[in-house]
Amino acid sequence: MSYDLRYLAKLCGAELCGDPEKVIAGISSLERAAEDQITFCLDSKHLEQLKATRAGAVIVNNKIAEAVNGNALISNNPHLAFAIVAQALHPPAQEAEGIADSAVVAVSADIAENARIGPNVTIESGATIGENVQIGAGSFIGADVVIGNGTRIRPNVVIENRCEIGSNCLIQPGAVIGGDGFGFARNGDAWEKIPQVGRVIIKDNVEIGANTTIDRGAIEDTVIHQGVKIDNLVMIAHNVEVGENTAIAALAGIAGSAVVGKRCSIGGQVGIFGHITLTDDVVVAATSLVRRSIKEPGVYSGSVYADRLDKWQRNHARLVELDSLARRLIRLEKEYSNDKE
Amino acid sequence: MSYDLRYLAKLCGAELCGDPEKVIAGISSLERAAEDQITFCLDSKHLEQLKATRAGAVIVNNKIAEAVNGNALISNNPHLAFAIVAQALHPPAQEAEGIADSAVVAVSADIAENARIGPNVTIESGATIGENVQIGAGSFIGADVVIGNGTRIRPNVVIENRCEIGSNCLIQPGAVIGGDGFGFARNGDAWEKIPQVGRVIIKDNVEIGANTTIDRGAIEDTVIHQGVKIDNLVMIAHNVEVGENTAIAALAGIAGSAVVGKRCSIGGQVGIFGHITLTDDVVVAATSLVRRSIKEPGVYSGSVYADRLDKWQRNHARLVELDSLARRLIRLEKEYSNDKE
Amino acid sequence: MSYDLRYLAKLCGAELCGDPEKVIAGISSLERAAEDQITFCLDSKHLEQLKATRAGAVIVNNKIAEAVNGNALISNNPHLAFAIVAQALHPPAQEAEGIADSAVVAVSADIAENARIGPNVTIESGATIGENVQIGAGSFIGADVVIGNGTRIRPNVVIENRCEIGSNCLIQPGAVIGGDGFGFARNGDAWEKIPQVGRVIIKDNVEIGANTTIDRGAIEDTVIHQGVKIDNLVMIAHNVEVGENTAIAALAGIAGSAVVGKRCSIGGQVGIFGHITLTDDVVVAATSLVRRSIKEPGVYSGSVYADRLDKWQRNHARLVELDSLARRLIRLEKEYSNDKE
Repeated sequence: MSYDLRYLAKLCGAELCGDPEKVIAGISSLERAAEDQITFCLDSKHLEQLKATRAGAVIVNNKIAEAVNGNALISNNPHLAFAIVAQALHPPAQEAEGIADSAVVAVSADIAENARIGPNVTIESGATIGENVQIGAGSFIGADVVIGNGTRIRPNVVIENRCEIGSNCLIQPGAVIGGDGFGFARNGDAWEKIPQVGRVIIKDNVEIGANTTIDRGAIEDTVIHQGVKIDNLVMIAHNVEVGENTAIAALAGIAGSAVVGKRCSIGGQVGIFGHITLTDDVVVAATSLVRRSIKEPGVYSGSVYADRLDKWQRNHARLVELDSLARRLIRLEKEYSNDKE
Repeated sequence: MSYDLRYLAKLCGAELCGDPEKVIAGISSLERAAEDQITFCLDSKHLEQLKATRAGAVIVNNKIAEAVNGNALISNNPHLAFAIVAQALHPPAQEAEGIADSAVVAVSADIAENARIGPNVTIESGATIGENVQIGAGSFIGADVVIGNGTRIRPNVVIENRCEIGSNCLIQPGAVIGGDGFGFARNGDAWEKIPQVGRVIIKDNVEIGANTTIDRGAIEDTVIHQGVKIDNLVMIAHNVEVGENTAIAALAGIAGSAVVGKRCSIGGQVGIFGHITLTDDVVVAATSLVRRSIKEPGVYSGSVYADRLDKWQRNHARLVELDSLARRLIRLEKEYSNDKE
Repeated sequence: MSYDLRYLAKLCGAELCGDPEKVIAGISSLERAAEDQITFCLDSKHLEQLKATRAGAVIVNNKIAEAVNGNALISNNPHLAFAIVAQALHPPAQEAEGIADSAVVAVSADIAENARIGPNVTIESGATIGENVQIGAGSFIGADVVIGNGTRIRPNVVIENRCEIGSNCLIQPGAVIGGDGFGFARNGDAWEKIPQVGRVIIKDNVEIGANTTIDRGAIEDTVIHQGVKIDNLVMIAHNVEVGENTAIAALAGIAGSAVVGKRCSIGGQVGIFGHITLTDDVVVAATSLVRRSIKEPGVYSGSVYADRLDKWQRNHARLVELDSLARRLIRLEKEYSNDKE
């Protein structure tokens, strides 16, 4: 899409310094932007590139605005302004209108007239598909699933029966919503399956990454609250609850019945034990393992960083005898202290 | 489904205290159960909820049975009894009968008459699909695959050619069985692919989680024995063997040719090196990395737990100089000991 | 396929000791090979099995060649020779010729005449599919995607719009190429999506594992260079660049804008921070977390190995007070040193 700067400035609430008639056709980076593209600069670290850019306009805050040679959009939150402008210039790809001939849709499914259903999609009985919903090729929508207005589902997604997806969500390819939770009872040496009869409830404005899996609840539901953003290959187990606007990075795993608060930031490859609660505004650093409930907001970490192998091996060799070293230290302190007395 | 308590008690081998005619229509939790629902209570920690429940019946052991106000099913293993009752009350969703019109089935595939093949499924030549098998929408069954009686495959699963799945298995959506193992030979700086000609053999009563991947063997087979339960997003590499009734939690990875024994419990995000053996009855704690064979049953861990960032950073700073600290301790011990002599 | 040893020796550049007319029909292991199968032996550790094998031929280096009782193919790089022979004997399964009736192909897509498009595939407008490309059942090829000659895509793969795949690549089932990067701007407590308008560019001879996800760039592209081999369930974030012939094991995660050099080896479950650079020829041990750029080739590790739980718990208890222990050691050193003066 193309818009002039007058429109874009108004759209994102920025002050325009420059030519309001200038037409912009897309976003780019400071280094690569062409004359019909807009870019952004967040801080003075990139002043050189900012001065040199050939972009048709740059979104900046007022501290660095004077470094802009051409057109500037001045905003208190240039990153947000850029997101809004970019959304306007690059609307998401649309499925073709209507229901593809190759889609298999149950007669009892209730599909909004303007919903777009891609090729080879399967929609089972009783499903409800809201206004302007788009469902990508090869996706599966189980019986009695509800999908809210404006939600976009990319190809080869699976949403198992009775799950509910809110409005304006975006589900990346290959995600699985509502697979069975991992619940079994011991039967001698073997395991007996416990049917997982809960659902997954996803509220509005949630994004779910590619090949992420969110299991349905055992009895009650797994709940992902409004505005949550989940990256790729994340595992959310049965009966987990994730609070509003929390972000979860790739390959993280949250075990059964854990509750994660609002506005949390869960790093990549983090593990969170089951049946614990993280309060609001908790940040967990990448690869850390959270074993106990966290009651205070703040940053938590157990990340061990890679070092040169020979150095790490020497340290690791001490780590596995650390208790013994500590005991020797304590004994030495005692002996020394006794001597002095 | 609905059954009376006489039937359900007999089904799960429990002693019935109460009204044998009472009709039960589903499972629920102690807190939420309605009068036509059954629930369970495993221990005295939930006595308050047990006394207050409005459930139509509660499954308990005889130690807490007297706390039940209404109908009770008394069992030595209430969790197992609950699983069995829940299975009866909540049978899995069924695919529609027969083969969907949109499924593409090779003429030479051998499909049991009562098998149910969902929409947009592909079944290649020579595949054998057993009695009462159900294959969900969009799944792919490669050439010469064998699927045993009663196995259920959820949507968008891929089973590559020649793999064998036992009876009464359950494969969650998006799982990939029989992709190529990660096998390459060095060719100067580059890698030359080694064709992976083994298969994946999955025995009876195995459950495989959503988006989990199990690679085919390089020459011989990857084998998952009877009763194994695998959670979501698990990686099982080529030529791994997993023993009977072992459970593997989400995001765990087992490298090539590793052998995991029977009745093991592999925690979430665990890594297991290739070409090692874990004996039977080994428990590995979440996120631990197993580098060497384990010959003794027991619990193993290398889990580092998250702490407040400032505290962890101070400890981590010492960890990366731990060998040097240990040497200083040893030197101090020596000097002190020499002084005393 | 079947070939005689004369042909196979020439194919892999090996010296043939034995019967050039001997016909070989497949590969196997030293222990299991039948008379019409070929196998290999890399070192003297398996001399017993080498002497006992019933294989029709064995590929070896000249150091152990004399231990072969039957036919031998002698090569400087027996592993590579075996790979080449195995490729000839076990060519990959072929899709049926042409375009499956159930495939949904946009009129404007440009598909080579000898490309093979499987059942229930969707190919969107403007896509270009090269010579001898094979696309497995249920895969999705987005608008304007380009796929180079000879590339094979297994079932249920998703390649989002505008991404480019080189020649002779192999993409395992369920992989997702070109999903949106995880990019959001803060909007008060909420997140505003930043459209991800870059692409994924995959060069020639790349293999991508099952259910692996490679996100498209935010503005510029995510690039996977020639000869890279990526295992299953790997996460490659937006704007990452992976250098030629690097191998990445399962469940590894590489965060946004990281650059990994050539010929690197990234272990299973490794994490690599965003916006850092790993130079060429870096090896990162399994589960290690790389936080800073690595400028020197070599092996890096932060792997903590599992130990018996009781032992590990004692060491872990000291780890979380390590800074305090170190301070006590330093104080003791000082006091002792002062005393001696």
